[in-house]
Amino acid sequence: MFDISIITIGDEICIGQIVNTNAAWIAGKVTSIGANVKLHSTIGDNRDSLIDELNRLLPISDLVILTGGLGPTHDDITKNVLCEYFGDDLVLHNDTLKYLKKIFSLRGYHLTERNMEQAYLPSICLVLKNEVGTAPGMLFEEKGKFVISLPGVPAEMKYIMNDSVIPFIKRKIAERNDNVVLYKNLQTTGIPESKLADMIGEPKEFLGDGSLAFLPSYRGVKLRIGVSGKNFETAREKLKKIEKVIFEKAGGNIFSADDESLVSKVGSLLSERNLTVAVAESCTGGLLGAEFTSISGSSVYFSGGVIAYSNEIKEKILNVSKDSLVQFGAVSEQVAFELARNVRDIFKTDVGIGITGIAGPTGGTEEKPVGTVFIGLAFGDNVKVKKFVFSTEREVNRERAVGTALTMLLNELQNNE
Amino acid sequence: MFDISIITIGDEICIGQIVNTNAAWIAGKVTSIGANVKLHSTIGDNRDSLIDELNRLLPISDLVILTGGLGPTHDDITKNVLCEYFGDDLVLHNDTLKYLKKIFSLRGYHLTERNMEQAYLPSICLVLKNEVGTAPGMLFEEKGKFVISLPGVPAEMKYIMNDSVIPFIKRKIAERNDNVVLYKNLQTTGIPESKLADMIGEPKEFLGDGSLAFLPSYRGVKLRIGVSGKNFETAREKLKKIEKVIFEKAGGNIFSADDESLVSKVGSLLSERNLTVAVAESCTGGLLGAEFTSISGSSVYFSGGVIAYSNEIKEKILNVSKDSLVQFGAVSEQVAFELARNVRDIFKTDVGIGITGIAGPTGGTEEKPVGTVFIGLAFGDNVKVKKFVFSTEREVNRERAVGTALTMLLNELQNNE
Repeated sequence: MFDISIITIGDEICIGQIVNTNAAWIAGKVTSIGANVKLHSTIGDNRDSLIDELNRLLPISDLVILTGGLGPTHDDITKNVLCEYFGDDLVLHNDTLKYLKKIFSLRGYHLTERNMEQAYLPSICLVLKNEVGTAPGMLFEEKGKFVISLPGVPAEMKYIMNDSVIPFIKRKIAERNDNVVLYKNLQTTGIPESKLADMIGEPKEFLGDGSLAFLPSYRGVKLRIGVSGKNFETAREKLKKIEKVIFEKAGGNIFSADDESLVSKVGSLLSERNLTVAVAESCTGGLLGAEFTSISGSSVYFSGGVIAYSNEIKEKILNVSKDSLVQFGAVSEQVAFELARNVRDIFKTDVGIGITGIAGPTGGTEEKPVGTVFIGLAFGDNVKVKKFVFSTEREVNRERAVGTALTMLLNELQNNE
Repeated sequence: MFDISIITIGDEICIGQIVNTNAAWIAGKVTSIGANVKLHSTIGDNRDSLIDELNRLLPISDLVILTGGLGPTHDDITKNVLCEYFGDDLVLHNDTLKYLKKIFSLRGYHLTERNMEQAYLPSICLVLKNEVGTAPGMLFEEKGKFVISLPGVPAEMKYIMNDSVIPFIKRKIAERNDNVVLYKNLQTTGIPESKLADMIGEPKEFLGDGSLAFLPSYRGVKLRIGVSGKNFETAREKLKKIEKVIFEKAGGNIFSADDESLVSKVGSLLSERNLTVAVAESCTGGLLGAEFTSISGSSVYFSGGVIAYSNEIKEKILNVSKDSLVQFGAVSEQVAFELARNVRDIFKTDVGIGITGIAGPTGGTEEKPVGTVFIGLAFGDNVKVKKFVFSTEREVNRERAVGTALTMLLNELQNNE
């Protein structure tokens, strides 16, 4: 196996001001091409910590990927510490200088001394070009082991990963004829983890030396199959066999075997069938609309919606009847029904979704506790409303309402073919 | 200093399927009470890796906090590995058993053998109660050093941290008379990092042995001041001095010195002045409404809005004139103006915000490239529109449009007192 460790460098991550999304992105990316992630480590902007981590991780890894600490200010120490670690010196890298001059002149800026220093790079490293920022990546080799240093800015890190690092790792895995590790995700929705586990039964009976993990989220439970094999072909064969068994047992709940997200799957189905959708959101306040429109090209099937946070707007813009609001309350089956039906009619779409609920943490009653959410789905002439009681947490209730509304629409699309 | 290391355990995090939010949360929490975070480490569900990490981190830390691997299934190994590490055995913990029986009977479930095993805990550990789940936390001491093991489920981890771990760390810092580390954030918005740096000048002149970091995000640049002192009082004194200097230099751009978020600050100002707001969103598709409504109690000032993703909806629901749409296009100053003004009039609010733009990655033209966004702000009788060209990335453009709209409203609220 080609073992990779990841070191994230930065005080702001170490003290918890920023969530470390870089490590997850890098780990996901290298895993998808058959490498094995040993561990991630996060340290502050500190020379000793970085030297310690390199000393510890290089012996147990084929490649150590560093991210962060390559900027132009005083707290960016990575380049100098790597020079020290490999006993090397900084030299002027002409291509980088040319590139810096070019982009600074394009932007109409003068190239300052501070920025010019970014063109001085360790003499023994292979420079990995960065066309979206000013700090290039660096690749070092020592006794058949590798260290790659990348900027911490996510867009720059991703550019160099895609442009240089991923092809490099693929080549190394192929050259060494290393064992590869492969994963595949089967995505389910609308079924609790425990029920899904019962349907699938004892995994040992069909997994061989593979693995199966259940990963629940607000958009459903993901089943992750993992296998290793002496090459891609044998690994893929193993994956296929396990996938087949799981489809036999729980295929009805799997909506995607190719990492398509729930909202993207729903969008594809709407688009295929030339259907359009509009939303009327109370407690989710725009979150469902934001999720639909996170997909580029969603304007084909998503017309828009109304964020009806006050009763007045529900009445005035969405024609919810005053009687329903007074008699049943804004959080009620009747109001969810009218929200879904009326937004469909007003926006002249095929589908209307209405969401009303008590997100919390305040506003709950004995009869309607925090977490009570009614979701209405108007599909053609048919309007359905379902009631849910999710949790006591505001963000959880809003996220689960969005996930559940998408699942209801997915099921309707699958059942009305 | 009281040094803490954090180990996150779980294959799904190691291979990048889940972003490690637990480590950031724990690090932020312990930093806020004066502890010093040495590093975070993330490993798979693997005995050897966990033993290696404990061997390495315990000597350099006063406390190692583990999260994950305490569930009831076969891949949850933490409890057994800790037993092995400390040469201990599992014994029945009566209070935990009582608690498990109680919650299972409340939920109407039978307590299975698998769940009962969660009441068997290492004999030498102090059990930290978990009233939001089934796996309690565990505290071990060895030669004046501590290991705390917590569940990986965020709500459970947070419960035990707040209920047991934070008071424990506070007590230890006080007992040992340890040096404390304190941080304070000053939040700015509407000013680029480099300009802010110029205003503040050379930090060495006023920092002493403190530190200053610039942390940019889509909601502004955060200035993080860090100091250490022999006790809380001296550290707070140092913080106050540095804060005063920064306020003198850049106070006009600082909207919060107490970690209040931009949307929450805007909400407080609206609320104080009895003003209401409505939004008309095209390219952001509900994201601004979702941000306003992420704050509990926002219904006082946020009435709702329209997600006008299609031209038809802009015309029909928001009365945008056909002429404007045809003559200037949906992404234009004129349409942003009408969106803001009309949503304010239709929703009868004091403030209206209209956003229209090309989020990308497709849909750009030479005249209006991807990233072009017009934001209209109707405030009382006054309507302003600003044009921006953000980036080529869809998510970045949507996030920056939301952040910029909030900044425009903040400035208007601050200038119209």
